[in-house]
This record gives sequence, C-alpha cells and structure tokens, in this order.
Amino acid sequence: MTEFDFIRQYLNRQQQDAQLLLGIGDDAALIRPHAEYDLCFSSDMLLKNRHFFSDVSPEDLAWKVLAVNLSDMAAMGARPRWALLSAALPELDAGWLQRFCDSFFALAQRFGVVLIGGDTTKGDLVFNITIIGELPRGRSLRRDAAQVGDDIWVSGELGLAAAALQHHLNAYGLDEALWPLCQAKLLRPEPRVALGLKLLPIANAGQDISDGLLQDIGHILAASGVGAELWADRLPVPEALKQQLSRQAWLEAALAGGDDYELLFTAPQNRREDILAVAEEVGVAVARIGVINHTAGLKIMASDGQEITLTSKGFDHFG
Amino acid sequence: MTEFDFIRQYLNRQQQDAQLLLGIGDDAALIRPHAEYDLCFSSDMLLKNRHFFSDVSPEDLAWKVLAVNLSDMAAMGARPRWALLSAALPELDAGWLQRFCDSFFALAQRFGVVLIGGDTTKGDLVFNITIIGELPRGRSLRRDAAQVGDDIWVSGELGLAAAALQHHLNAYGLDEALWPLCQAKLLRPEPRVALGLKLLPIANAGQDISDGLLQDIGHILAASGVGAELWADRLPVPEALKQQLSRQAWLEAALAGGDDYELLFTAPQNRREDILAVAEEVGVAVARIGVINHTAGLKIMASDGQEITLTSKGFDHFG
Repeated sequence: MTEFDFIRQYLNRQQQDAQLLLGIGDDAALIRPHAEYDLCFSSDMLLKNRHFFSDVSPEDLAWKVLAVNLSDMAAMGARPRWALLSAALPELDAGWLQRFCDSFFALAQRFGVVLIGGDTTKGDLVFNITIIGELPRGRSLRRDAAQVGDDIWVSGELGLAAAALQHHLNAYGLDEALWPLCQAKLLRPEPRVALGLKLLPIANAGQDISDGLLQDIGHILAASGVGAELWADRLPVPEALKQQLSRQAWLEAALAGGDDYELLFTAPQNRREDILAVAEEVGVAVARIGVINHTAGLKIMASDGQEITLTSKGFDHFG
Repeated sequence: MTEFDFIRQYLNRQQQDAQLLLGIGDDAALIRPHAEYDLCFSSDMLLKNRHFFSDVSPEDLAWKVLAVNLSDMAAMGARPRWALLSAALPELDAGWLQRFCDSFFALAQRFGVVLIGGDTTKGDLVFNITIIGELPRGRSLRRDAAQVGDDIWVSGELGLAAAALQHHLNAYGLDEALWPLCQAKLLRPEPRVALGLKLLPIANAGQDISDGLLQDIGHILAASGVGAELWADRLPVPEALKQQLSRQAWLEAALAGGDDYELLFTAPQNRREDILAVAEEVGVAVARIGVINHTAGLKIMASDGQEITLTSKGFDHFG
C-alpha cells in the first residue's frame, strides 16, 4: 500500500458538510466560514511512550488522539467542526489502519467533526491533530475571564487516569474492580463538548485539565490576575479510589495527575442552579470545588480547616 | 526551563493582527474570519532523518518546517495568514531555541504569518505545522481544474534539491561551485507565495512539487481526468547540473527527485503573456514544459521526438 492508496482508501471518507468546499486530496482544504461565527484552533501532538504505551490498541489510540483535541474545543465552549490529522506510522498495515480509522471516524462523527486534511509519513507513531471549532462571535470560555467571587467547578471525576498510569508504572496497584475504570479514563477520555457548549453563556473562565488540576488552574489564576481557594474534600474523587490509596496518593492523583480531560471552569455564584441544570441536561456530573479570591496564590484546604501542601505540582512536558 | 517558560519567552511574540482575537496561551486560538474570504488549511509533519538530517542547523530547520507549509498555500493561490506549530524536542536548550525561533519568526513575518498556537512536548525532533490561508471566495488553484489544451508550467529550477540529497547519500558528487546552490535549495526552499497569488486569476490547476514532478503532476492529471505530454529538454534544470550529471541522473533529479517546492500549474494558451508578465513582476522564472491533452497518461518526450522512460517515479513516503 502506498501513502496515496492509504489516503484514498482509509481517510477520504465522504462526509457531508455544506461549508467544506474542498476536502482531502489537494494541497489544502477549503472552508467557507459563517459570518456569525469566530473560529478557534488548537493542536495537540502525541508520541509513543510519551502520551501512550506502544501496546495501545489502534482503537484506543485513535480515540485518544482525537479526544484530547475535542477537549480543547470543549474548554473554549466551541463546537468542533473540522480536523487535520498528521500521522507518522512505521508501516501501512491494512488491519491496523482499518481499526484505527474506524475508531477515529466513529468518534469524529459523534461530535460532528469532518477530517479535511493532514499528512502521513513514515515514523515511529507520532500523531498531531489540529482541530477547528466554531464559536458565536465574541463568545468563548477564556482563561483570563475569572472574576473574584466566582465559584470554581470541575466536571466528572478526577484522579482516575493518573491512578491508571501509576498502576502501569507499578507505583501502586488497583484492585480488579477499579482498574478497568481507571484504565478506561486513561485510554478513552470523554470530551465534554456538550457541557462546554451549554456553559458558554453561563461560565466566565474555562479550560480543560490535561496536566493536572493545580497546574491548569494556575493558568486561569495567572491569566485572570486572581487567586483561589480549593477544598480538597470536595474534589470529585471516587470513593473506591480513596479507599485504595493513601490520602496523599489520591490527592496527588486528583490535583497533579493529569490526563483527566475534564472541564475546569469558574462562574458567578448566582449561576449555581443554571450550572447544575445544564450538567444534568447533558448527563455530566459537576462539582463545586472552590472559590476565586483576590489573593495572589492558590490555597488547598482540608475540611478540618488545615492547609494542604503537595510535593508534586503537575505534569511538565520537559520534566 | 519549563514548557511554559518556553512558550512565554520564545513563542508568544506580540504580533499585530486585527483578526486575531486570542493567540497563544489559552486552550485554543480565536480568529474572526472575513466574510469575503474562504479559508484554506494544510498540515505537514517533518521528522528527523526522514525530512531533515540530524545535524541540520536550527535556522535551516525552522525555515524548512515553515517553508514547506507556505508552499502549500502558494499552490492554492492563497495568502498564508496563521500557523500552529507542534514541536517534539529532546530538550529545551535556550541557545538552540533562540536560533530556531529567530529564523522561524523572520520567515513568518516576511510572509505575514502569525503563530497562533501549537503544542510542545519532549521527543526526538518532530515538527508539525498547520497553516491557514485566505482566498477570495470561490477562487483557488485546485488540482482538478486542468483543461485539455492547457500549457503546463513550472516555476524556478528543478532537480537541485534532489541532487543535494544524492550528494549527501554519496550517490554522486557535486563540485564546489554547484554543491552550495543545491544545498541551499534543499535546506531553504523559497515558497512561491507571491507567484501563487498572481496566478490565481490566470491559471487553471496548480500544486507544488514536493514528491517529484512526475508524481505530483500525476495528481493533477488524475484529479482533472486528463493526460499530458512533458518536454524533457524544456525542464528548467541548470546547465551546471546537466554538465555534472549523466542525462539519466539529471532527468531523474528533475522529474522524480522531490523537495523542489516549486509551483506546477496549468493555464490556457492565451494567457502566456500574462504569466510571463506576473512571473517577471515577482522575480521568479517560469518555464513552459508541456501540454495537457485528452489521453489517459503522461508522456515525456525528448527534443529528438523520442519518448523517455524513467526507472524512478518519485517519492513514496512509505517506500
């Protein structure tokens, strides 16, 4: 199979999109933007043994490569629309590619994303997606929009993906009931696109949690010029995880673990009911975990009023 | 230096752009499109020892990573506007990064391109750029628009980059005068953006030559449902290269070598004067090298009327 056979047979699936003037197969794809929308753009690169293990299934790999990019759109409150996929593959293995592409296009279709271009080359499993989304003009969930007094919210559950990674690395073991849940969260993060769309008119600041809650909330605080207090015992960490790990370990998994791909957002206190309502509508749990204040830093408080300090501060890609 | 220091210190250069609502530093960048333009999108991934040698200078590397993407915009007749850069780097070496970024931003600025986002991670030198350009609504140089009777044109000179690669691989040697010219063409291809913009209202089909003229013209022929005759002795191959290589070797370099990043385009015969005029205006040579016909295939003819056959057919990324 040549590169061009691959593109023709596997990637160039006919997809309906009135704004797509020219898709895969030319020097570039052509899109006609809607006048009433801004466009938002994000790229994520994933490498073998850095972002996924070499024995990952092609289905899980395709999911994660696309899902982490969908999560960036969710974090802006944007509707994902188009994607470009660059892939460095060691070989063009028909069976592997079929499985990868079936999973990729299934997830893309679920979120209304059309693959419009990209690149393929020989290499040791590197993937880059650029995703493009639409936002109503002038609206977005930016990092610099948190206001003093805002509640701090997070979607879903925290710490599961990090626990799966630690289990992989033999730092600690998880039991047979919890392990598959953690593994699923690590391999198949669920992009919170529907929630992000609903939060767009409600929330102030937003981002997704990819490098660990502490590090990621730090971006909101720095960009907004505010501080925050987080309540450790309000973090949405599953009871099962708390039971199997030390308090220090589950706190680190939830606060500094990374790979959660949950939404972290701030919103005025008078929008609490609205937030709970839209969360229920889209079927995603949300937890109110702290408050934005006018201090310079971030405090993590236990329910007994003691401040908590952690040794780990989240994932640095060059650490 | 952390990833975030790197982004803040090296990548987040303030750049003026009225359409850029939100640049580097959030989950995604925000652009407000102009109603009178379509947007075009292209991605290219470059890997060490596949697309560049490991001893390449950071300046040359940054140039090539961006230039090959600019070339895709040129091939559409588009004005490049924005780029996202994903980079996997073995370490964050301040001196190396400074040199890479200075070269990158110098080229970007020359072409009016603003870096709006991307990703950085640890890895062994992988780069992916997604470039975004503007085209007047409904206009573009597509591959499927060649018409029977069209002249076939190519910009610049062919075969130099391929000769530099063969010299590197010790397939043959180039003399001390020619070698730097070939090396410059391999390392620093000149994106034909200005020519592409001028050709937009004149030419029919267009693309850039990255994998070798024969393979790349094959895309135009297939997409347009036409055939072509090429005239080997009209190919813009420098005399110095012809003198140092066998006829077979320079023909292969020019027809199947790749890495030229010249524009290949077709245009009605009655636009010859216009094409020569705009080429002179932008200071890029163009050569008329063949004609589109209604046959199914591609014939390469020598000036003595004999048909030429080649052993090599261009670059397959999985070959």
